[in-house]
Amino acid sequence: MTDTAHETWMMWLRDAHAMEAQAETMLNAQIGRLETYPAIRMRMEQHLRETTAQRDALSRLLETHGDSASAIKDTMGKLMAAGQGLSGVFAADEVMKGSLASYTFEHMEIASYRMLIAGAQELGMTDAVAVLEPILQQEIAMADWLSENLAPLTRSFLARADSDLQAKR
Amino acid sequence: MTDTAHETWMMWLRDAHAMEAQAETMLNAQIGRLETYPAIRMRMEQHLRETTAQRDALSRLLETHGDSASAIKDTMGKLMAAGQGLSGVFAADEVMKGSLASYTFEHMEIASYRMLIAGAQELGMTDAVAVLEPILQQEIAMADWLSENLAPLTRSFLARADSDLQAKR
Repeated sequence: MTDTAHETWMMWLRDAHAMEAQAETMLNAQIGRLETYPAIRMRMEQHLRETTAQRDALSRLLETHGDSASAIKDTMGKLMAAGQGLSGVFAADEVMKGSLASYTFEHMEIASYRMLIAGAQELGMTDAVAVLEPILQQEIAMADWLSENLAPLTRSFLARADSDLQAKR
Repeated sequence: MTDTAHETWMMWLRDAHAMEAQAETMLNAQIGRLETYPAIRMRMEQHLRETTAQRDALSRLLETHGDSASAIKDTMGKLMAAGQGLSGVFAADEVMKGSLASYTFEHMEIASYRMLIAGAQELGMTDAVAVLEPILQQEIAMADWLSENLAPLTRSFLARADSDLQAKR
């Protein structure tokens, strides 16, 4: 494989790094709005810790493969701003919209890591596969948790909407 | 269950209808860019036909539950414009970004239908469950197809990036 394929892969890795920074912003925004849903809040807090560690791991992988620490920091600055805008859109509505956004975002992450892992295998980068595979598993676990909780959360949310109205009558 | 819960559910159904309109725009944009990937193109064309039928089914369900045809049409007009902007962002890059976007979007659809189905069950709307369940299955089938094809597509894409460069040397 040549420089073109490797450079394409590096671009994907930079995107994944930015994506995790966005995930941190989104998770922080959601955690702040989940006082009355302690189980979801606890799982999101756990995933925020995982996400911070993932971003650090991707940052080290970028450096190992030739990106300078200052280049990584520059990109981060730009993307944190974009991420704040995005999380504003997602967090503007209630807990259901937040869950839908989280589930969707987790699958963007899953697809990104599957691409990165397939690419790293093709390019013979075993060090990268070793970093990325555990991250993929964390994203899959989070997506599965969100998926299992979506139907019970919906029922609980609609029941609350109902009892809130009853209380006002 | 009261009017509040039902009105919330109707809002979700309107969102799902708008989402399918966005899906049509995105699929059309992607199909136009996939000349050299006939297998993906064929699957996307199939899903575009499914998506159009899904939008019609949601439109009928909205009417059954009290939305007027003209209200549905008004919302559509606004959202088609938003959808075109979104599909422009997604389609600006190459086939890999398109696949990532499609996979992500499919999961937004899956989560939306799971919410709608759980809500319809809670509200005792069996007619809606009967319409929404087959749509959910189509979205899951499309997401599975995209998931299975992501790794082989990545390898093929990087190999092409490689041979394109070789050809220029």
